[in-house]
Order: sequence, then structure tokens, then C-alpha cells
Amino acid sequence: MESSNPDRSRLARSNIDIVAFQGEPGAYSEQAVFTFFGPAPKTRPCRTLKEVFKSVEDKTATFGVVPSENSLEGSVNQTYDLLLESTLKIYGEVKIRVEHCLLALPETKLEDIQVVFSHPQALGQCNSFLENVHAEVIPAYDTAGSAKMIKEKQLSRAASIASERAAELYGLKIVSRNISDSAQNFTRFFVIGSANSSPTGKDKTSVVFGTKHTPGSLQRALSELSTRKINLTKIESRPIKGKPWEYHFFVDFEGHYRDPKCATALEALGTSTTFLKILGSYPAAE
Amino acid sequence: MESSNPDRSRLARSNIDIVAFQGEPGAYSEQAVFTFFGPAPKTRPCRTLKEVFKSVEDKTATFGVVPSENSLEGSVNQTYDLLLESTLKIYGEVKIRVEHCLLALPETKLEDIQVVFSHPQALGQCNSFLENVHAEVIPAYDTAGSAKMIKEKQLSRAASIASERAAELYGLKIVSRNISDSAQNFTRFFVIGSANSSPTGKDKTSVVFGTKHTPGSLQRALSELSTRKINLTKIESRPIKGKPWEYHFFVDFEGHYRDPKCATALEALGTSTTFLKILGSYPAAE
Repeated sequence: MESSNPDRSRLARSNIDIVAFQGEPGAYSEQAVFTFFGPAPKTRPCRTLKEVFKSVEDKTATFGVVPSENSLEGSVNQTYDLLLESTLKIYGEVKIRVEHCLLALPETKLEDIQVVFSHPQALGQCNSFLENVHAEVIPAYDTAGSAKMIKEKQLSRAASIASERAAELYGLKIVSRNISDSAQNFTRFFVIGSANSSPTGKDKTSVVFGTKHTPGSLQRALSELSTRKINLTKIESRPIKGKPWEYHFFVDFEGHYRDPKCATALEALGTSTTFLKILGSYPAAE
Repeated sequence: MESSNPDRSRLARSNIDIVAFQGEPGAYSEQAVFTFFGPAPKTRPCRTLKEVFKSVEDKTATFGVVPSENSLEGSVNQTYDLLLESTLKIYGEVKIRVEHCLLALPETKLEDIQVVFSHPQALGQCNSFLENVHAEVIPAYDTAGSAKMIKEKQLSRAASIASERAAELYGLKIVSRNISDSAQNFTRFFVIGSANSSPTGKDKTSVVFGTKHTPGSLQRALSELSTRKINLTKIESRPIKGKPWEYHFFVDFEGHYRDPKCATALEALGTSTTFLKILGSYPAAE
């Protein structure tokens, strides 16, 4: 695989490229793996996001690809909670367009469908479509996994919301195409690994911090970025387990932690917060 | 019901107190209804959060009670998305301790259990417990609803994660008690209605706003609160549908929108943001 990204080329040369993702083959996470690494890498499908992290931590896989947020449904909370606990670094990001299809056995017609299975995020992204299909909606752990189940169990009155590739892989028919509430349906993924990514000149940095429980503490922390003209691209709050109504803040901003401006901001952020963890700096996706 | 809260007493006197909640009787949302309104009100169980909002909008119910966040799992995104669209006001907040139990048919033993059903948030809150029960975990729309299903379908190899009250209501046995990952498991609910709540001297205000896509715009918006010593108690970002990687910010702060300090801050916030909607001011829960 040829790539203009020096890190990725290095990876392609290294021949140790097993990439873990959550779901069955045909999952959108697998598509994100191919978009980032090219079609070359061996993949390791995992049942849970925790298993993806564990695979990279115990070196069963070199990298993992985990969803961080969807442009309709928002953040994937479990990914953020796992990033907080893990020693892995965010090595890259990749965004893919999500084109949901309604899949069923070849003989099933739209009017036969009594049950629709899919991942809760996918179900949420197709709310309007589902309101017009008078079927029971049942959450499943994976989009492609629910397609596979329909095939394996020969469920003739069921459908799955999954990708076109899942239809091909599991021999299902596309009953309806482009069923997302909005055509602007994208998912962003983090590539996680044990190594840091080198500066490229167009990077992002992800951090997590806690703040004192006093007025203005979050605003003061954010001002360490804004006074240095560093663009914040995302902020996400997650509850601190065991401390009700206290939060950790996950913040993404433009720049690499080794850039002088970012390094100074991070140093200041470290003193204006109760704790600070740098999750990684990585080339910004388009 | 006697209450020191003037608004609640007024409500108790009004005799028009039908309160909508999502789930079956025995759901934690129903418990929140009783905690806020006392055991008096007639309730209207709804299948979805959208139906709760609709019931109050079309005056089938006077109030609705909807979960906003859990201290382990975080925000209930759909509630925030519905608040953005709705013309209803947040009239109150209520926090309850969540004490999850594993429920099954009276003859079922822990080692018989092959499947555990519950709401995804409840499953997430009992992750550690579930890792030690070697059963398939299946998401359902409601905690109490999954308990009801086990009874109705006489599923002898299944269990549900739900409340003690659900066990009583559906004649199930408590196989295990207090199975949350943390004893500090609380859920906060919003009481929604068409009327505003009057100032009590110890209030909170919830707003949602958008910011310009420029460095420092969120920090500038938050500084309208911090420079006036107004305590921000929560911030939540939600994606703007149709505008990938742009966000609305849901912010809670101390004070009532009619308090002079808050009124000035809100006026300033209106000019430093691209749009601002006041979701409501209401007495702060303990």
C-alpha cells in the first residue's frame, strides 16, 4: 500500500499490522480499518470495545480502531471511558461516511418485516425511517453481527440495519438503501496503539482533565487554549465513577503536543486542572 | 401530600396531576415521579421518551419525568435532543439512588441464567457483575419491561436487571441485590411541563446554545457566566444533525433566569453565541 502519510507507510513496511476492531466482518469499524490502513492489514474482529483495547495492550494486535463519535448520535461513551483507563495512545483518526441499508433474506419483502435488529447507534441514526416501518426494533451488539444472525438463523420476517458490504458478505438482499435520518452521517474513529504519532504540521491532540469544583474552573482551563489561539474542536464531559455530578472533560484541539505553542498550553493546563492526561497527538483526518 | 416546595404543593392542590414517564410500572422513572410528586399522582407509562414529551405537549399529561443523566453512565442523549426541539420547559429536577437487582422467576437459580435483559444504561452500570455471570446480555427498552417480559413469557433461564419494586410488581425473585459497579449510582431526572417554575432562592437554569466555529468561542460564552461568579454545574455537547463535527452545548448553572445576575449573563450569552434557548429554571434538587 502506498500512502502519503509517513507513519502509515512505515506501518505498511513493518509487516506487523494486525488491527483489532469491534464487530463482525462487514462492520463500519472494519471499513474504517481499511480506510486508514488500506486493504492490506490482517484484522482481528472483537466482540467488545474492551476486547479491542485488551488486544492492543497485550500485543495480540498492533493497532485497534474504535468509534469515537457519530455526527448524528454523538459520542461513543464507552470508548472515552476506556481511553481514560488505558495506557494506549491515540495514534490516528479516521472518518467514514455511514450509508445504512435495510438488509433481509432474499425472499423477504419490506411488508413482511416484523423485527429490525441493529446496533443502538445505527437504530438511532435511522429513527425517521423506522417510524414508518411498523416493526419491532431490537438493539444488537453490532450492525454486521445482526445481519449475520438473520442469515444463520434464516429469519424470514426480520431485517438488519447494516452496510452494503454486510449484505454481500452474508448473502442478504438490500431492501432499502440510504435510510439514515440525514445524508450527513459520518462516524469518526480513533486508531489506538502503543506508539506516539510524529508531528506532521496538521495534527490534533486529545486530552482528558478534571477541574476543581469552583465557579469558572472549566472556563479557566479552556482559556489556556484560547489565549494561545489554539482551536478547540470537541469537548465531551463524562461522569467520574463514584463521584456523582463530577465530570472529566475530554477535549480535542488543533496541534501536536510537541509543537511549542501546544506544549506551553499543556503545561499551563496541567497546573489549572486537578489532573491531566494526554491521550495522544495524531494527524488530523480530512 | 405535604411538601415544603410551594410549586409542588400548588400542584397537589390542582388535581390535574397526570404525570407521564417512559417505561413500565416499576421503572426507575416511575420511582422519580413518586419522589418528586409524592405517591398521589396518576401516571401515564409511555413506550418512548418522545411519547412522554408528546403527552405533555398535547396535554394528555400535565407533566413528564425524563432521565437526564446517570452518575455512572452519563447523559441520556435522547432527552437532550428532545429538549432542543420541544417548546416544553424544565419545571424541576429530581435525583434518585439506583439500586439494581437481578430478578428471575422464583424457581430460577443464578447458575441457570443464560440470558440477562435490561435497558442498555442499566447493563452498563452493572458491567463488573455481568462479567462474572456467564450469560448473554441483551439490551431491552426498559428495566421493568424486561422484568415483566420474563414473567409473561415464563423465561426460566433468563434474568432482568431492574428495581426491587419491579420484582414485587411482577412476582419475580431477587437473585442478587446491589449489583451496580458502584454504590454511588444515582440518576437525575428532569420534570418537564408547559409552565415555568418560580424562583425559590436555590434554583438551577438549563440552556442550550451554539457557538461560532472560531478559536475561543466556547470559552468566551462560558466566561459570561464565570465573570459573574455563576457556577456552571454541567456541560454537555451534542452534535448538530446535518452539520458534521459542529455541536450544541447544553449548560446547567446555578440561579434562576429571573435573578438579576443571571438575567444579565443570559443577555450577554445571547450576543456571544449563534443561538440561545432557555430550557427552564427550576428548584435545585438536593
